[in-house]
Amino acid sequence: MSEAAQTLEGWFSLHEFRSVDWTAWRLADESERSRALDELQSFLRQWSETEQNKQGSTAVYSIVGQKADFVFMHLRESLEELNAIETAFNKTTFASFTYPVHSYVSVVELSNYMAQPGSDPMQNPDIVARLKPTLPKANHICFYPMNKRRDGADNWYMLGMDERRSLMRSHGMIGRQYAGKVKQIITGSVGFDNWEWGVTLFADDALQFKKLIYEMRFDEVSARYADFGDFYVGNVLDADKFETMLKV
Amino acid sequence: MSEAAQTLEGWFSLHEFRSVDWTAWRLADESERSRALDELQSFLRQWSETEQNKQGSTAVYSIVGQKADFVFMHLRESLEELNAIETAFNKTTFASFTYPVHSYVSVVELSNYMAQPGSDPMQNPDIVARLKPTLPKANHICFYPMNKRRDGADNWYMLGMDERRSLMRSHGMIGRQYAGKVKQIITGSVGFDNWEWGVTLFADDALQFKKLIYEMRFDEVSARYADFGDFYVGNVLDADKFETMLKV
Amino acid sequence: MSEAAQTLEGWFSLHEFRSVDWTAWRLADESERSRALDELQSFLRQWSETEQNKQGSTAVYSIVGQKADFVFMHLRESLEELNAIETAFNKTTFASFTYPVHSYVSVVELSNYMAQPGSDPMQNPDIVARLKPTLPKANHICFYPMNKRRDGADNWYMLGMDERRSLMRSHGMIGRQYAGKVKQIITGSVGFDNWEWGVTLFADDALQFKKLIYEMRFDEVSARYADFGDFYVGNVLDADKFETMLKV
Amino acid sequence: MSEAAQTLEGWFSLHEFRSVDWTAWRLADESERSRALDELQSFLRQWSETEQNKQGSTAVYSIVGQKADFVFMHLRESLEELNAIETAFNKTTFASFTYPVHSYVSVVELSNYMAQPGSDPMQNPDIVARLKPTLPKANHICFYPMNKRRDGADNWYMLGMDERRSLMRSHGMIGRQYAGKVKQIITGSVGFDNWEWGVTLFADDALQFKKLIYEMRFDEVSARYADFGDFYVGNVLDADKFETMLKV
Amino acid sequence: MSEAAQTLEGWFSLHEFRSVDWTAWRLADESERSRALDELQSFLRQWSETEQNKQGSTAVYSIVGQKADFVFMHLRESLEELNAIETAFNKTTFASFTYPVHSYVSVVELSNYMAQPGSDPMQNPDIVARLKPTLPKANHICFYPMNKRRDGADNWYMLGMDERRSLMRSHGMIGRQYAGKVKQIITGSVGFDNWEWGVTLFADDALQFKKLIYEMRFDEVSARYADFGDFYVGNVLDADKFETMLKV
Repeated sequence: MSEAAQTLEGWFSLHEFRSVDWTAWRLADESERSRALDELQSFLRQWSETEQNKQGSTAVYSIVGQKADFVFMHLRESLEELNAIETAFNKTTFASFTYPVHSYVSVVELSNYMAQPGSDPMQNPDIVARLKPTLPKANHICFYPMNKRRDGADNWYMLGMDERRSLMRSHGMIGRQYAGKVKQIITGSVGFDNWEWGVTLFADDALQFKKLIYEMRFDEVSARYADFGDFYVGNVLDADKFETMLKV
Repeated sequence: MSEAAQTLEGWFSLHEFRSVDWTAWRLADESERSRALDELQSFLRQWSETEQNKQGSTAVYSIVGQKADFVFMHLRESLEELNAIETAFNKTTFASFTYPVHSYVSVVELSNYMAQPGSDPMQNPDIVARLKPTLPKANHICFYPMNKRRDGADNWYMLGMDERRSLMRSHGMIGRQYAGKVKQIITGSVGFDNWEWGVTLFADDALQFKKLIYEMRFDEVSARYADFGDFYVGNVLDADKFETMLKV
Repeated sequence: MSEAAQTLEGWFSLHEFRSVDWTAWRLADESERSRALDELQSFLRQWSETEQNKQGSTAVYSIVGQKADFVFMHLRESLEELNAIETAFNKTTFASFTYPVHSYVSVVELSNYMAQPGSDPMQNPDIVARLKPTLPKANHICFYPMNKRRDGADNWYMLGMDERRSLMRSHGMIGRQYAGKVKQIITGSVGFDNWEWGVTLFADDALQFKKLIYEMRFDEVSARYADFGDFYVGNVLDADKFETMLKV
Repeated sequence: MSEAAQTLEGWFSLHEFRSVDWTAWRLADESERSRALDELQSFLRQWSETEQNKQGSTAVYSIVGQKADFVFMHLRESLEELNAIETAFNKTTFASFTYPVHSYVSVVELSNYMAQPGSDPMQNPDIVARLKPTLPKANHICFYPMNKRRDGADNWYMLGMDERRSLMRSHGMIGRQYAGKVKQIITGSVGFDNWEWGVTLFADDALQFKKLIYEMRFDEVSARYADFGDFYVGNVLDADKFETMLKV
Repeated sequence: MSEAAQTLEGWFSLHEFRSVDWTAWRLADESERSRALDELQSFLRQWSETEQNKQGSTAVYSIVGQKADFVFMHLRESLEELNAIETAFNKTTFASFTYPVHSYVSVVELSNYMAQPGSDPMQNPDIVARLKPTLPKANHICFYPMNKRRDGADNWYMLGMDERRSLMRSHGMIGRQYAGKVKQIITGSVGFDNWEWGVTLFADDALQFKKLIYEMRFDEVSARYADFGDFYVGNVLDADKFETMLKV
């Protein structure tokens, strides 16, 4: 039996992808649209307050293409809080003009392949900050889920700890070249959703997503051992941009 | 031909995942919503009575994310009883405000790799209790279906009994480390649903689902021989919490 | 080129899985529901007559779980008769309260691996009876489609006739141990539907489905050479039980 | 690099599978149904004229099972003509009582593995007739798409021309045994639809579809090198039979 | 670790596939249809102006078969502009008579396997023109997404740079034989959508799509290393042809 790497977990995460029923929205009474927009703005303010109070963080982006119109990515202390956010949203007039298209449940995770024996990582403020991060307001978001492959000779989970550690080190070095260009949040979803990890990237220049992921694909960790799900890419929304997007 | 392990079966199981039509629910007359909630509460009481009478057991959880809003996991003596529960539910006003999103049919199973020759396991009250269990009311539920893999060199069903027994023993030892943290109900679904087994986990700390499943994934039984379906994770509901969730 | 086994074909088969629109059904006028139930009962009588006249056979079962509410399995002389049954049903008021969820087109088949050279199997009344069977009214039904695998070294269709015959013989011996417990109807669907065979099992004790299929899975024919589709399990319906199921 | 076989192309092909909204149809005014049937009959006449004028050909069949209620298979000179037929149909009252369920775009193709060097096949009237065929009015139709496999050691496109030619010759010999029983139209769809070929079979005896395809599956070309999509089987419709099918 | 090829990126790309709700369209008031058509014509003029101003390019084609009724392929400077086009379209009356069926997000890409060391490709006007191309108005379009395969021994990303360069050179030589017949736009979608590349082909003779792709399939780059998604084929639309297509 191969040894599992130690992982550290922080805030739970919920990505909520939704689309707008544009016909219903366009045909609605001005007053109903107005009520719906008030609800939306109220949620955005509330999530922003939670973020300022360091009790969580929320990213809000439009999504390019037909897969979704927007995404809320919520980080919170517990699955109960995430569930409460969903349910509160579902009960609003605004929600009735939208429909769910995809979601992802996970937890912020640091995979501790580089752990120093004997040290307690939770005493390290940098590590704690990475486990309970304030999500960037970068221009662009990119989300995709992934698995480590278990397929014949390409079986990550049958490799020894040393081999995995060495492969992950070279993988991490690619990531480090993109420091300052791409911010990466890894969330673990084993037991929570259909893939093993969610990857959420933030960048001001969307091309950096492509360059980073493409370069990594030639690295053995991705080339032989990674399977990927659907990719979503989007543009940052604030209260004004969201209102503009919905203006009819 | 390889020898099949002996299995013991207990109660039949039905997982019913459903979502709420929130717009219809919000726009319904107060009186109609009230009638619907009465029906729901009446079911919850009835299922609770069945549980107290040791004629079955029912777990009720909300689901996090868009895959479903809630799940009923019913254990009963027969497929006829499970079908009757479904049908009774479908005929209610409450059911009309919800829609089916996924279900799973299986039977509580103990895989008897450790069987003592000559002993009758059904004379063992501990085994009988595990075959007809009262489902925990833990904070969280995790459900996923799985197969043993039959893929080229990684073919579980072509292994000899001794090899499978030895692999399962090491697998079971991981599970035992989580005793007291994670309660596991294995249900067999060969001939009943699309995967060979359903796994339902209960825990007060949701992170234990991730830790248990991740650790097991490095074990050869999972690493080489397991395929997994969709994962669902949720929070416990009682009559009050369900009412609160539906309060508009 | 490997030699194909001789097959014998009998009645054509159509499995029709449908679900009930329970909200529409509950909200319908008593008179409309009554008309719909009369139509259903009239079909059941008509199909029963066909069966008594040895011109076909029909099995009627409810389905457990959300995949479907009920299934009609029709055996008839021709694809034209099966199509006529579908179309007649589709035109009724009862059909309007239901919707199609799955179907399977095939033909009763005996795979003649054990054929005696020189004998004409159609002169054997036992074989003719198996090709045009009266479907059992057992308590439970189990249906699933399957393929023989063609995947790298596990390619059934590249095996020689002798090897296939020997593998099938050992496979058949497992089946024979369940004689009297499980009745099996094999229907071939090459050229008719998406899998190569449909398997329909009937048993009074539903656990026998699981025991039979699980035991067979360790047999090389299944372990290395079988791929399976979705599984459906259900409970027998007669005119009264169907009426009770639909009583609101 | 392996050499591609020469192919000859004839008429473009569109399979249009559609289903009837039976509830809407049953509840429609007699006059609206009558207008819809007139439109249908007018299309059937028009397509029949095109066929008589050798400017194309159209096959009309009902489909058995729930995958579709009927299929139109149109052969025409250009993709523009096929698109025009679709669009004209979509604008009718009759179309509003039906909904699209599947389509396939391809072009009649002869794969020229047996080509004589130096001869111009388009001077051969038999070949030209096969490229622009009048579709049979046989009792039954069978349609499925397929790929040549590219999977590890089973990679058709890495075989040399001589090996492919020899494999195709033995494959063709099976087909020839069904001459007079099964008429086969091969359409190429590389660049047009999701599979590489569409296969449309016509026969008076539907069992011949099964026998032909099953026998071919033991041939190495199918056994090792073919992947198949969904299968559709149906019964011939003429103007009267179509009207009868729709009679409520 | 294998070295990633350098890539050059130009305009971002959005393929928007949509279908018409023909029943709603046929039954709409003449005045509403007229308003909708005005909106469509206004978009077409606007996109044409953008193209004339070299600020982007848009291709408009009908799609053959039921996968979609038409596609807009937009090239623009940024993901924000593409998102704005989508949103503006979604708010119109015309959009309400259509529904989204598929989209693809990518960026025009030149894969620089042939790069001269020391030269700056962006100083080459020919390369800049290929990165910000004016899309052809050819009779036909063909779109499909693709991946380079990572499957056991067939793993593109584990090959060395020299081997990939040599394979790509032979691949490119096939393409060059179709110069003047097929115009190819490669868009990279790593990090933007579910496949690694989108391929959009334009040709006056649709058969050239088939001949090009089929010939390439025998080339090792495709035969061993390419996986393909869904294929869409269509006919060019201009303002008049679009109006004719929608005329009821």
